Amino acid sequence: MSWSQPAASVQAFLAEAVTLADRALEEALPPATEYPARLHAAMRYSVFAGGKRLRPALVLAASRACRGSDVACTPAMAAVELLHTYTLIHDDLPAMDDDDLRRGRPTCHRAFDEATAILAGDALQAQAFLSAAALGIEAVRCLGLAASSRGVIGGQQEDLDAEGAPIDGSVASQARLERIHRGKTAAMISASCVLGGISAHASSQDLEALRRYGEHAGLAFQIADDLLDATATSAELGKTAGKDAEQGKLTYVAVHGLERARAQAKHHLGLALAELAPLAGSTETLAALARFMVDRDH
Amino acid sequence: MSWSQPAASVQAFLAEAVTLADRALEEALPPATEYPARLHAAMRYSVFAGGKRLRPALVLAASRACRGSDVACTPAMAAVELLHTYTLIHDDLPAMDDDDLRRGRPTCHRAFDEATAILAGDALQAQAFLSAAALGIEAVRCLGLAASSRGVIGGQQEDLDAEGAPIDGSVASQARLERIHRGKTAAMISASCVLGGISAHASSQDLEALRRYGEHAGLAFQIADDLLDATATSAELGKTAGKDAEQGKLTYVAVHGLERARAQAKHHLGLALAELAPLAGSTETLAALARFMVDRDH
Repeated sequence: MSWSQPAASVQAFLAEAVTLADRALEEALPPATEYPARLHAAMRYSVFAGGKRLRPALVLAASRACRGSDVACTPAMAAVELLHTYTLIHDDLPAMDDDDLRRGRPTCHRAFDEATAILAGDALQAQAFLSAAALGIEAVRCLGLAASSRGVIGGQQEDLDAEGAPIDGSVASQARLERIHRGKTAAMISASCVLGGISAHASSQDLEALRRYGEHAGLAFQIADDLLDATATSAELGKTAGKDAEQGKLTYVAVHGLERARAQAKHHLGLALAELAPLAGSTETLAALARFMVDRDH
Repeated sequence: MSWSQPAASVQAFLAEAVTLADRALEEALPPATEYPARLHAAMRYSVFAGGKRLRPALVLAASRACRGSDVACTPAMAAVELLHTYTLIHDDLPAMDDDDLRRGRPTCHRAFDEATAILAGDALQAQAFLSAAALGIEAVRCLGLAASSRGVIGGQQEDLDAEGAPIDGSVASQARLERIHRGKTAAMISASCVLGGISAHASSQDLEALRRYGEHAGLAFQIADDLLDATATSAELGKTAGKDAEQGKLTYVAVHGLERARAQAKHHLGLALAELAPLAGSTETLAALARFMVDRDH
């Protein structure tokens, strides 16, 4: 949960977001005692695994930046975290990244079993749409697009397809890298911001500004993630480090090297911050969150 | 595609439903040439695998029984088939039923690979919600509940949990069997009927009648499925026969035996037909479909 040198105000904001998100998630999920108990236990195991709740925090900050009410945006906070958790569970599966650790604990398929992990992910996706439905059709469409083959799943597939392919600085490699990062990470980060705006009944111009802010902040975040995988330890990350290089993944670091990757992260951070100007409410938190997403140590 | 001795009028209806469903599915899915091409090819491989389109046919028949327009219900036809196809892909995975054949062709993970099959299923679920969104929030909620841990995924988990457990005629076995069948099959069959009603702006009483019709027809259908797995050949089924007994699955046949299973299927068929009385439009096709779901040879 700690970030590198977070400002006290941002730490307080993140703690507030965790509290609101956890309450919304608790309400969204069936109790662990309900049939089938093993499935509901697995869903809760992964959802309540001590995640940073970055996406719910972005929903909350975006809602406030559009002068929305916190209560109105909590279903969106639950929706994005349920969706995100499902993608992590499936991403960790043996047929995918084959990870044993997630947030310092056994991954879902290690703590339970592979079939239960697949189903827990499947059920969390459905639950995410049920939460989004509380905000109306525009929210369902926004989440649907981010969750689709044109969003996060498309990015995952490109990521897998790129494994073992030659990595160079060619235009083809760079274009593929861009598609991977936009899909895998930026799509859901961006959707989180837009959902916050939707819950605040923001104008279409404001929603578009939030979308672009999220897109750039998401790209900066994923570059920072690639950098961390290449430079941090497993203990620092709470998951297996150095797996990208080991698996021959197409990352910013692999294509551009450490220095250019750092410069690209800063570049996208600047573009994200520039999008915040037109929003009517306070955008300080969104700005601080974007900075955090780049300057973090895990 | 052939059913046992289908009435000519029902054959014509099913052919019509296939045409409408396939057109809606074609529109709902990204082209196979769009990035990532492997993912979109896998999604299309499984969606266009010569399925009977039973769930879309139920949507169409339910819509007509409520005097709805065919055009208005096509997004729901796409939504239920996309959702159904995703559950089949995941159900066939090595960690689940580990099936090599589906509708007489290699399963998705055999034709592509396991990771692609997981992601194709994931993306099809998101696409199903995007299609349902065209019908409004009530449709999204209906699909979401059927797709959730309280619907089809809950039934799958109970099915897996029951494997290898002692099978007897005890109250516990019977209750679990009921939950498996309601979740695995009846939830989506029932949701298909309700979605047809929603697209026709049916009254809440009519939606409730459609829900109960679908519930009973779905249970009858699953019992017929259990019977077929126990009595038909792989060639007849287009998938591996006899797997239920081999895997120690909790089925109607295992708990009640062949004769009582047949009687139960007829019992639920009668209850389904009795629900059709209050609907204002023609219910002949819904009645004929329910009979087919019981009297089929694959």
